[in-house]
Amino acid sequence: MIKVAILGYGTVGSGVFQIIKENKELITNKAGQEIDIKYVLDLREFPGDPCENVLVHDYNIILNDPEVEVIIEVMGGLKPSYDFVKSALEAGKSVCTSNKELVAKYGAELIKIAQQHNRNFLFEAAVGGGIPIIRPLNMHITADKICEITGILNGTTNYILTKMDKEGADFDSTLKQAQDLGYAERNPEADIEGYDAVRKIAILASLAKGKTVNFEEIYTEGISKITAEDFKYAKAMGRSIKLLGKCKNEDNQVVASVAPRLLAPDHPLFNVSGVVNGILVRGNMVGDLVFIGSGAGKLPTASAVVSDVVDSVRHLNVSTTVMWDEEKLELEDFSKSKKKFFVRSSSSKEDIEKVFGNVEYVDANIDGEFGFITEKISEATFAKKADELGTVISRIRIEG
Amino acid sequence: MIKVAILGYGTVGSGVFQIIKENKELITNKAGQEIDIKYVLDLREFPGDPCENVLVHDYNIILNDPEVEVIIEVMGGLKPSYDFVKSALEAGKSVCTSNKELVAKYGAELIKIAQQHNRNFLFEAAVGGGIPIIRPLNMHITADKICEITGILNGTTNYILTKMDKEGADFDSTLKQAQDLGYAERNPEADIEGYDAVRKIAILASLAKGKTVNFEEIYTEGISKITAEDFKYAKAMGRSIKLLGKCKNEDNQVVASVAPRLLAPDHPLFNVSGVVNGILVRGNMVGDLVFIGSGAGKLPTASAVVSDVVDSVRHLNVSTTVMWDEEKLELEDFSKSKKKFFVRSSSSKEDIEKVFGNVEYVDANIDGEFGFITEKISEATFAKKADELGTVISRIRIEG
Repeated sequence: MIKVAILGYGTVGSGVFQIIKENKELITNKAGQEIDIKYVLDLREFPGDPCENVLVHDYNIILNDPEVEVIIEVMGGLKPSYDFVKSALEAGKSVCTSNKELVAKYGAELIKIAQQHNRNFLFEAAVGGGIPIIRPLNMHITADKICEITGILNGTTNYILTKMDKEGADFDSTLKQAQDLGYAERNPEADIEGYDAVRKIAILASLAKGKTVNFEEIYTEGISKITAEDFKYAKAMGRSIKLLGKCKNEDNQVVASVAPRLLAPDHPLFNVSGVVNGILVRGNMVGDLVFIGSGAGKLPTASAVVSDVVDSVRHLNVSTTVMWDEEKLELEDFSKSKKKFFVRSSSSKEDIEKVFGNVEYVDANIDGEFGFITEKISEATFAKKADELGTVISRIRIEG
Repeated sequence: MIKVAILGYGTVGSGVFQIIKENKELITNKAGQEIDIKYVLDLREFPGDPCENVLVHDYNIILNDPEVEVIIEVMGGLKPSYDFVKSALEAGKSVCTSNKELVAKYGAELIKIAQQHNRNFLFEAAVGGGIPIIRPLNMHITADKICEITGILNGTTNYILTKMDKEGADFDSTLKQAQDLGYAERNPEADIEGYDAVRKIAILASLAKGKTVNFEEIYTEGISKITAEDFKYAKAMGRSIKLLGKCKNEDNQVVASVAPRLLAPDHPLFNVSGVVNGILVRGNMVGDLVFIGSGAGKLPTASAVVSDVVDSVRHLNVSTTVMWDEEKLELEDFSKSKKKFFVRSSSSKEDIEKVFGNVEYVDANIDGEFGFITEKISEATFAKKADELGTVISRIRIEG
């Protein structure tokens, strides 16, 4: 029997507790021994809850108990998670976490500390919720040079965009609806401005490249400026608008970004709708692999956390190989990245063509403006031309 | 440096050779040491080919060379693969294979022999080509009770069905075209009659349940009876026809089958087109996970084989846990499985309703017959009623 402790009894933490209890027999089989939750750490009380008997309020009880071999950190945030996790690893305990902020900021350091102690720092649930993506990158796609990772990595924004697409609704009312239904937080900034997605693509890029990609250096644009009119044009193009986290080799450089993009129906992520997440990984040998599933939610996320717990029990004194050095990966300047842009402008066709040259118009029956698609140009060139035209209402990048 | 040998220098074998050479540096990093191909076994000569220097014709040279620690079996078939693989494992070598026939028939036995010798028998490429599905089932979806696996597991048939769907062509001419393009074999029986897919679903079911599912006991129906008219009805229903391998819990029993089925647009596999494979895994905690990618082809399949080689090098003297006992899993009698059926019949509506009761008609503008959807009934009940009506032109199961 192996003793574990859960730090944080929120949505994910209570899900982990539930799964370890409900699927006990099969988890024991898979792990090779029974997993016993010795402690749950939370500042709150939970009278009548099954966690009550093992609830503690002082982390040191857990840290100083040599019986506890695996720590499950599901509190989120950096404080006190970082200190808790670091001290646990240094005390020779393995750690499993769903905390994308922690992993994006301190992943390489924590992996190194784990390896120094022959323990594991696992974080399958930090990206894509229940979708297996961390482990496939580390353990499966090992024969391939990874050329591209493109993902719908945030369920809240995908839910909002899907609703806007289907119902022709505007952003504000859809966000409000999503908040009322619990799909979006009262303070939705982290989701809708892409701050959640950018941490996730930084983690995936770091694992794919083996070096640290600093999420603060990734171009990040959210969905709050997307309008019902944009969707009218998208429909006219037969495309959908998705918030994509991307990391891609372009001219031997790595370009990373989070931004809304227009996807064609043959794109593998075109049909990934609602709160679902989807991730495309392109290898130089295996071609395109696509992983789709619940990107959030209590039980899917907790399922991924428990799979890490099983993995760490299987590899109690063996550090599983993860390539993620602290060395920084220099990203290519995003302004050099080339693509087609869809643009809406109130200028005349003559003026549009004078600035953008050969464009392809899109008719969505909206008065007082023209929608058009540019040729493939760099971000810098686009910015310069948009400035020159002076009448750009909105622009969305075309994917693929 | 670790020495490996490739058995069979056909499509997959030469792909493995190529990937290990071309991606040498990154594979060395991932495996922790360099992988050196000491031998290639094939009865043929390959003058001028890079494999020439390491080509041997006698398996005993490889078997008796203690330097060779990993054997890559990519010959296919049961003879002599089974003897070669078994003797390699007994000699304390790990084996990686893409051979679905071998795994479906002898998987449990070979895993046991490998475990007895602290070695590994890995077969990621045996199902889904380059798609990671075996490793996710063994290593990732470990916190869940797996309720269902449904897959498009054969690229040839999916290519044919996609062409028929898009072009309204009939089966024979589409098969001939697929053969001319190399997507179907001259002797296409194994693909089009479902014999390939049934081995793959048997492997997945065995891994999901931890016991041996005998592929010979799985109901198997191919696509050779699907007609252009069937697709007209499918279109009228807004559905597509896919050959699905299925393994599902129904009333606490496991039901398995391979058969063409009618999928609605919201089914996760609806858009999996052409030679691509897609697999849906439904867990009781994580919900639906979908894996999509190249189900065949030289490099995708070889990529999965090499990922197994990397895995076996990382776990040289550690048997990775795989739950697949020799104990047989008793499948539920397929005749008890319930679903809706789409039926074409030349009887009158009156006669149809007399036998099938409340049905939903589908109008595809085809004279001299009616298409209709039954209520949810068992296979046995359907067979009895179809017999009673006596005029069934074709019937396809409705999925979901």
